Amino acid sequence: MSKVLIFGHQNPDTDAIVAAKAFAYYQSKKGLDVEAVALGEPNMETNYVLNHFDEPAPRVIKTAANETDHVMLVDHNEAQQSVSDRDQVTVDAVVDHHKIGNFETAAPLYYRAEPVGCCSTILTEMFNEEKIEIPAKLAGLMLSAIISDTLLLQSPTTTDIDREAVRELAEIADIDVQSYGVEMLKAGTNLSAKSDKELIDGDAKSFDMSGKSVRIGQINTVDLSEVIDRQAGLEKAMQDENAAEGYDLFITLATNVLTSDSELIVAGSNLDVVEKAFNVTLDHNRASLPGVVSRKKQVVPPLTDAFEA
Amino acid sequence: MSKVLIFGHQNPDTDAIVAAKAFAYYQSKKGLDVEAVALGEPNMETNYVLNHFDEPAPRVIKTAANETDHVMLVDHNEAQQSVSDRDQVTVDAVVDHHKIGNFETAAPLYYRAEPVGCCSTILTEMFNEEKIEIPAKLAGLMLSAIISDTLLLQSPTTTDIDREAVRELAEIADIDVQSYGVEMLKAGTNLSAKSDKELIDGDAKSFDMSGKSVRIGQINTVDLSEVIDRQAGLEKAMQDENAAEGYDLFITLATNVLTSDSELIVAGSNLDVVEKAFNVTLDHNRASLPGVVSRKKQVVPPLTDAFEA
Repeated sequence: MSKVLIFGHQNPDTDAIVAAKAFAYYQSKKGLDVEAVALGEPNMETNYVLNHFDEPAPRVIKTAANETDHVMLVDHNEAQQSVSDRDQVTVDAVVDHHKIGNFETAAPLYYRAEPVGCCSTILTEMFNEEKIEIPAKLAGLMLSAIISDTLLLQSPTTTDIDREAVRELAEIADIDVQSYGVEMLKAGTNLSAKSDKELIDGDAKSFDMSGKSVRIGQINTVDLSEVIDRQAGLEKAMQDENAAEGYDLFITLATNVLTSDSELIVAGSNLDVVEKAFNVTLDHNRASLPGVVSRKKQVVPPLTDAFEA
Repeated sequence: MSKVLIFGHQNPDTDAIVAAKAFAYYQSKKGLDVEAVALGEPNMETNYVLNHFDEPAPRVIKTAANETDHVMLVDHNEAQQSVSDRDQVTVDAVVDHHKIGNFETAAPLYYRAEPVGCCSTILTEMFNEEKIEIPAKLAGLMLSAIISDTLLLQSPTTTDIDREAVRELAEIADIDVQSYGVEMLKAGTNLSAKSDKELIDGDAKSFDMSGKSVRIGQINTVDLSEVIDRQAGLEKAMQDENAAEGYDLFITLATNVLTSDSELIVAGSNLDVVEKAFNVTLDHNRASLPGVVSRKKQVVPPLTDAFEA
């Protein structure tokens, strides 16, 4: 059998890159021939993390079927967030912490999802269950992924299981979570170096909501005015993407990772649904969402419900 | 919050009933207010098991939303095998060992699937991971479910994880697996007491295959001629069901649980797809499938592939 490829979602964030590496290490300890790859280049934050722990970036693939029949997914399950030719390969395993979207297989598989803040948290549990020791470098990487996904345990997606995993991983990696975490989050928010298109595309994901194609991206910052000042350019970039990719609606969530507040900027149709979902009135395609930091928990569910209503 | 209801699939078999009881015990130990219920009456085999361990049958429900907002599923995930009003409630957790069929949620959840022979095997692992002790009676019930699903560890769905669970549960319950298992399987195959409609419906499940509605039932027996002698009546019953329920194709798999051979009896359209899927020629709507005992592993995947081809 050819090597099994393990990867996270398109537009990889730190968890998508790290969870693939962690699951590959876990599977190799169980005797499988696997390789952690990625569906895109690491972002600024992830590059900071990889440099910090002297870990190479994974190989980037565009398709899987040209080199293997079997894949494993981490940190995602929905087809439109996965490798482009996923229907040509067999998914042997999924480890994820997102909602399940029209996932379908021809045969039974390993599927492990938990409603926790980070995929690397679930992997920490799996290492413990199987009594596989986590090396110090991998613990540092997995700790970084949890800090990234939970915004230093501030996001409402954070659970006690995430907190316990952070405690355990920080001890193994011998890292001060607070000081390292703030440096890491800041490293990921150097917006001035990015074009408007790079900003809206950064970690954007596509969702099917009642037949509408909805694109949702998130920009982390330590100063929301950095984003608001660029609204005209961002709107133009979203309109261009809508036209090019056929999205009905593009939403960019700009989040202040230090204060846990967000601004919503939208382009496309169904703006009334957005207003209803978040109980706001859009002013020049923008609205404030105080206390909103989680796309997964605070944006996707109310928007899905509003489209279905 | 109202009590969380936990249940297996419609037309419950021993695993569907027992896994619900086991998961309910597990969740109650974690402090949740739960109740194991069922989507139908226990079959003959399950009644034998419940009587043997002096365990009451679960309450049967037809709908869930009239009494709760939250449910947990065991031994199934597909909507058409679940409670009729599942779209009205939130699925908090799934523990399953089947393929995933168009499963979709609005929010993250706990989902645990493994490609093993029985849902109660996964639950045995989960008890061990959380260091929750399995009481002797529950161990006997879970052991029965694994014997049932794997036909005494003979089915090709059987894995080393199932064998290890059987060893562990048999020790806790202090049961001789071979002698108890044969008695239990025989108790479930008293076909003469059942009408043709009861036979084809016994544990039938519905599948969507490339837009076609396919119904697949399985009859366990210790003598295939018992089924073959009733072919005309069974075909008539399947045709009636197709007309009443709108199925495109009805397949009944009759399986000799002692020799691990099956006969296939079909009614409806797309019979050429059936022939292609199993590489057989139907003779009067019937074909022999030597060595086939698993609907999940040996019937659904090739049929799904043939419909997609």
